[in-house]
Amino acid sequence: MILNETIVALATPSGAGAIAVIRLSGTEAISIGGKYFKSVSGKELTAQKTHTIHLGHIVDGARVIDQVLVSIFKNPNSYTGEDVLEISCHGSPYIQQEIIQLFLKNGCRMANAGEFTLRAFLNGKLDLSQAEAVADLIASENEASHQIAMQQMRGGFSNEIAKLREELLNFASLIELELDFSEEDVEFADRSQFKQLLERIENVLKRLIDSFAVGNVIKNGIPVAIVGEPNVGKSTLLNALLNEDRAIVSEIAGTTRDTIEDEISIGGIGFRFIDTAGIRETKDVVESIGIKKTFEKIDQAQVVMFLFDAATALLNLDDVAIELAKIRNKYPQKPLITIANKIDILSDSQLAEINKRIPEVLLLSAKMQFGVEQLTNKLLSMINSGALRNNETIVTNTRHYDALLKALEEIIKVKHGLEDGITGDLLAIDIRQALYHFGEITGQVSNDELLGNIFANFCIGK
Amino acid sequence: MILNETIVALATPSGAGAIAVIRLSGTEAISIGGKYFKSVSGKELTAQKTHTIHLGHIVDGARVIDQVLVSIFKNPNSYTGEDVLEISCHGSPYIQQEIIQLFLKNGCRMANAGEFTLRAFLNGKLDLSQAEAVADLIASENEASHQIAMQQMRGGFSNEIAKLREELLNFASLIELELDFSEEDVEFADRSQFKQLLERIENVLKRLIDSFAVGNVIKNGIPVAIVGEPNVGKSTLLNALLNEDRAIVSEIAGTTRDTIEDEISIGGIGFRFIDTAGIRETKDVVESIGIKKTFEKIDQAQVVMFLFDAATALLNLDDVAIELAKIRNKYPQKPLITIANKIDILSDSQLAEINKRIPEVLLLSAKMQFGVEQLTNKLLSMINSGALRNNETIVTNTRHYDALLKALEEIIKVKHGLEDGITGDLLAIDIRQALYHFGEITGQVSNDELLGNIFANFCIGK
Repeated sequence: MILNETIVALATPSGAGAIAVIRLSGTEAISIGGKYFKSVSGKELTAQKTHTIHLGHIVDGARVIDQVLVSIFKNPNSYTGEDVLEISCHGSPYIQQEIIQLFLKNGCRMANAGEFTLRAFLNGKLDLSQAEAVADLIASENEASHQIAMQQMRGGFSNEIAKLREELLNFASLIELELDFSEEDVEFADRSQFKQLLERIENVLKRLIDSFAVGNVIKNGIPVAIVGEPNVGKSTLLNALLNEDRAIVSEIAGTTRDTIEDEISIGGIGFRFIDTAGIRETKDVVESIGIKKTFEKIDQAQVVMFLFDAATALLNLDDVAIELAKIRNKYPQKPLITIANKIDILSDSQLAEINKRIPEVLLLSAKMQFGVEQLTNKLLSMINSGALRNNETIVTNTRHYDALLKALEEIIKVKHGLEDGITGDLLAIDIRQALYHFGEITGQVSNDELLGNIFANFCIGK
Repeated sequence: MILNETIVALATPSGAGAIAVIRLSGTEAISIGGKYFKSVSGKELTAQKTHTIHLGHIVDGARVIDQVLVSIFKNPNSYTGEDVLEISCHGSPYIQQEIIQLFLKNGCRMANAGEFTLRAFLNGKLDLSQAEAVADLIASENEASHQIAMQQMRGGFSNEIAKLREELLNFASLIELELDFSEEDVEFADRSQFKQLLERIENVLKRLIDSFAVGNVIKNGIPVAIVGEPNVGKSTLLNALLNEDRAIVSEIAGTTRDTIEDEISIGGIGFRFIDTAGIRETKDVVESIGIKKTFEKIDQAQVVMFLFDAATALLNLDDVAIELAKIRNKYPQKPLITIANKIDILSDSQLAEINKRIPEVLLLSAKMQFGVEQLTNKLLSMINSGALRNNETIVTNTRHYDALLKALEEIIKVKHGLEDGITGDLLAIDIRQALYHFGEITGQVSNDELLGNIFANFCIGK
């Protein structure tokens, strides 16, 4: 990538809208933009102050392309740390394309995926884990993943890593200093203090590594298999869960959904619901294939919701109990929620009957919104969201997770080496290796391939 | 609509992107926005100048929703003429929704479709035809429709109408003044000058009304039926036409298209291509249904492109000639372009043979890009784009067209009345009626229902 060129890209989602924003970044951004911008005030863009907005027209010779607002950001006070121009035009795809083409023909090149953020990283506006958090933030679909990405983008994670790295670096320097005086047999680095530090780092690393399990679940949603035959009210239940959580959303967009296999956010956590059929005893080959599929889907899930129609089930509660027992036997460890739906049309004695025969059944009416809150509480209690509430750092990125695992490995090597009394020069090598892995996370250590991989996953315009 | 409330909406297209813009407008926009914006500089939003940009965070109590840039526009120097805040946030749909919900819960209401532009109209920032041009501009898909919308938005059309209206209003006043002095039998309004004015207005109205045919074609694209059997190279030809016109587009998005029934822009004019099968003589019932459909599609088209494979056609040039004759007989008035494709694999004598047997055939090789430019020139020559090149006002809006027709009717009534020597009071009524229809176009005359109809076609956020 050549980074002294001025780049241009659409920054807003593609398609038609009221407005669209086209972003230019680079040393020539303001001068190139200024050449094709005729301000209403008559003043040149290059003469304007940073963080100001100007009304005018994008013109190509005599041809007026659009009336626009242009925002100026002068380096280093911009997203990329370079001179940046943001052109807010009418949101017609045709106009967006015409303006971008105009700049492509006149000294800009199309930005690569993630190049604005890459430049921000290279110019020291963000470290690498913060840059990665930008992509996570844009992809975040629920409160928990949004909160983690936000915390990471604001430097929470980097700070923790950077602090450990600095302390470790201190010791590394002292030990390396010892090597210079190796013939005098001095110890600048206090070995017992060093051991304490290593143990502290080990604990932090282990905590961060453990948090990845939670982080992964939060980032990708918790898979929940809904076992239930057609017409037991699966869709109604999901819509009830959805409405419980964000009734106000309906003002913005339709909330009713037709498919079961979808992700919804409950209490800020994403749950991915996986539709399955029932698993009743059968001699039918076709249906037994269905049962096999149901089990495959339960395999993928972290939670199983067993849903049945309370009214029709009254006639064959034994079958329901047998089905349930089968699931429990096959998956003794998997959290299971048993739900009797449509209880609004049952009498008290009928409810008592169900309660007696089906263990730990949750009585619910999706239609009447009865029992739904109890269900959401049960679902939420099944994930360890304690860490979330305590604002602890949670690792969600596989790259970070890998680096942490490697750093931990090196730290343990150093610790053992220290215990075994190995020489300072060997110790120093392992410490440097641990430091290397810390640096990988924040980007103090990086290479073109790594950067290429990370930013290729960004969208163009970011 | 209640217009003293502060409204909020997403202004950029929905979906994920690098950034999204949320717009607030109304007397409380800056104070409500300021309550939930924590600027990095520590300064209050309300203390900031108009047309400035501020970095900070959208916060809801302790919860940080996003890092954003906030742009301030103070009334009357904003799009709506009210105080406006534009919040540029990370383009995650989750974040967009959270920020909009935050404001909905705290004193804003969701903007109705087109309400920002409606407010701009009501606050005198735009007249009605300019407001309508905003929607056309966003919908514009090619150079010609974009140019017309742009001209209209910049007031070209309104100015022409407003000038006529003013002159007519002058005469109306004079004639109405005469009524006050009716017993003295004076004539303030020079009848021969008035007649000249009426004729001038009549000519302008007729020109504008005539331009609607061109305008309509430009706005909606010119329907072109491509008559051709499978494998004669219809897709290749369309891609060749597309590439001829905008090779650079490929840098922005993939340009190859698989379907024939699509709109492409040639020389800035939109052409809608309608795929049809051939119309060979047949006794097969199924195929004769196909022929009927082909004719139906030709009915809808303004231009017919008859495409055949030059190589295979050599074996049955008579059939081709018969097919062609059928189309010409059925549609003697419809412009027809006959194209022999794949000529690159033919010898000169074979080409001569085709030239001799098929009248006015255009020899082309879509694959080798030979003859494509000749075809685009032919297509373009088929629409009256002279008006476009001369920057004349073109009417594209059905509502304007209707008002112009009604105004013309009244003007002609006035003219005849004048010739018949009818009394000033009757004359005045017809003039007022013509003025009314002029006013309808620019919005000097409007009512809630009319405004409702117009702005309901806008997207929310505009």
